[in-house]
Amino acid sequence: MNVNQVHISEVGPRDGLQSIKSVMPTEKKFQWLEALFAAGLEEIEVGSFVPAHLLPQMADATEVVKYAKSLQAGTVLALVPNLKGAQAAISAGVDKLTIPVSASEAHSLANVRKTREEMIQQVAEIIQYKNTVAPHISVEVGISTAFGCTLQGTVPEAEVIAMAVSLAAVGVDEIGLSDTTGYANPAQVKRLFKQLYQELGPRAGAAHMHNTRGLGLANCLAAYEEGVRTFDASQGGIGGCPYAPGASGNVVTEDLVFMFEAMGIKTGINFEKLLEARKILQAALPQEPIYGMTPEAGIPKGFNING
Amino acid sequence: MNVNQVHISEVGPRDGLQSIKSVMPTEKKFQWLEALFAAGLEEIEVGSFVPAHLLPQMADATEVVKYAKSLQAGTVLALVPNLKGAQAAISAGVDKLTIPVSASEAHSLANVRKTREEMIQQVAEIIQYKNTVAPHISVEVGISTAFGCTLQGTVPEAEVIAMAVSLAAVGVDEIGLSDTTGYANPAQVKRLFKQLYQELGPRAGAAHMHNTRGLGLANCLAAYEEGVRTFDASQGGIGGCPYAPGASGNVVTEDLVFMFEAMGIKTGINFEKLLEARKILQAALPQEPIYGMTPEAGIPKGFNING
Repeated sequence: MNVNQVHISEVGPRDGLQSIKSVMPTEKKFQWLEALFAAGLEEIEVGSFVPAHLLPQMADATEVVKYAKSLQAGTVLALVPNLKGAQAAISAGVDKLTIPVSASEAHSLANVRKTREEMIQQVAEIIQYKNTVAPHISVEVGISTAFGCTLQGTVPEAEVIAMAVSLAAVGVDEIGLSDTTGYANPAQVKRLFKQLYQELGPRAGAAHMHNTRGLGLANCLAAYEEGVRTFDASQGGIGGCPYAPGASGNVVTEDLVFMFEAMGIKTGINFEKLLEARKILQAALPQEPIYGMTPEAGIPKGFNING
Repeated sequence: MNVNQVHISEVGPRDGLQSIKSVMPTEKKFQWLEALFAAGLEEIEVGSFVPAHLLPQMADATEVVKYAKSLQAGTVLALVPNLKGAQAAISAGVDKLTIPVSASEAHSLANVRKTREEMIQQVAEIIQYKNTVAPHISVEVGISTAFGCTLQGTVPEAEVIAMAVSLAAVGVDEIGLSDTTGYANPAQVKRLFKQLYQELGPRAGAAHMHNTRGLGLANCLAAYEEGVRTFDASQGGIGGCPYAPGASGNVVTEDLVFMFEAMGIKTGINFEKLLEARKILQAALPQEPIYGMTPEAGIPKGFNING
């Protein structure tokens, strides 16, 4: 990948939709995913393979994965918290799995009812299974609460990096860092990603930043400066983590695309088409607030984002 | 100034209040200014010396300057567009003058009805007058539309730097760059401030960023990395420029303070007291929206900003 190019992984259909009360109808998900791929997004986290009684918003994950794959438009990613979820996701045909592993013991227990060690063991089992049945599928982990936890407060940086090293050891392809709680600041983002690159080299993965305190884009900029080239973002900024009280607001895809493109860094995304996808999202969830300043302010005069 | 210290110049009482329709009563301005100084802000732009029929929100500028000075709490700054305004501001007792000079000819004509050359001449006259009657007063210019203009689009970087050099030549003490229209991106911010330092050395001044497209804090971070240590911000993000259509949203003081403090960079501001000032603002302008994410989300667990 060119140094002047970044990769935006759209997490709205999973992180966004699972965090709100409304359930988006499956047909609307299909339309939204199609529009997102058409806008140039190369990777979309389309759903989560968790029990439907826990997250009814994700009950149609199998259908959604199948539809997204049928579009043959980009990487179809799904979240799986355990082996059972991974089996279902692989059967549905995903290209890539993402597994939630928390750097905070308190958050890990609240989110997946497992200790951090148990989660690493779980990741190892998922990878073993995957290597047997579908070795072409890649596995990523975004280490959640990597920058702090609403339950336990500070999360020691050494523990975050040690978890990343353990995850690489069990075979995870990409290990990123997630600011689940919106606690991150640019200096911390630089310190942690720098260590992550030192320890993992090319297995260092995405920056998943939240805008809870308005620092989302500044943190993405800091990560970019430290060498990160993959960024999670959510259209309309929907999403957060339902098990981290007070957490809200993924980085807004629209604003992130504008920032990078304005800097001369290619995202491969067509802004007008991205706004068309936004209209589908807004129409499908009329009662939910959606965020983003660039869609409202418009692209500056004399400026063009063609993807 | 320590490298791990920044200086935040509060512009809400001028840039903020002049951009909204409501007129804050003079008594409320007094309370707000007192609370802002009490929170640790060392410099406040308290008003604008312009004809009251043009900006009725600023009609009490003389009283406000006198009151702010009587607090003996920090630098009292006022905006003056011309010699007449400068005379009134100096009579009222300001410590510092700021003069709006635009890098865009179209914006200059719309904002102050003068060409850029005429404005530089005006600045020279103000400085000559000031040097005669009150040589201790300092003069700053924040070059507006330095990153682009809603009227003319792109503003050539060479023209921005040439204006800065001309302003230094006529004796301006600090020359900063203002993203009046919210067009700036971090790469551009770095390029322009780098050139500004190369040309002006210690006379390079503040970064005045807007959050129109959500990039306000990212742009402040970029400016910080290029050596900028003074940042304009507005409590509650109120303000913008009434003559630049579509422009809105100064960088929010609260979020900017959180970003720097979280990075270990001292602002000298007590966050709790800053929130007390915010309450005064909100109560005085109940019908106006105010912004900022950190006030809503709260300071992260285990984190303290004591100023």
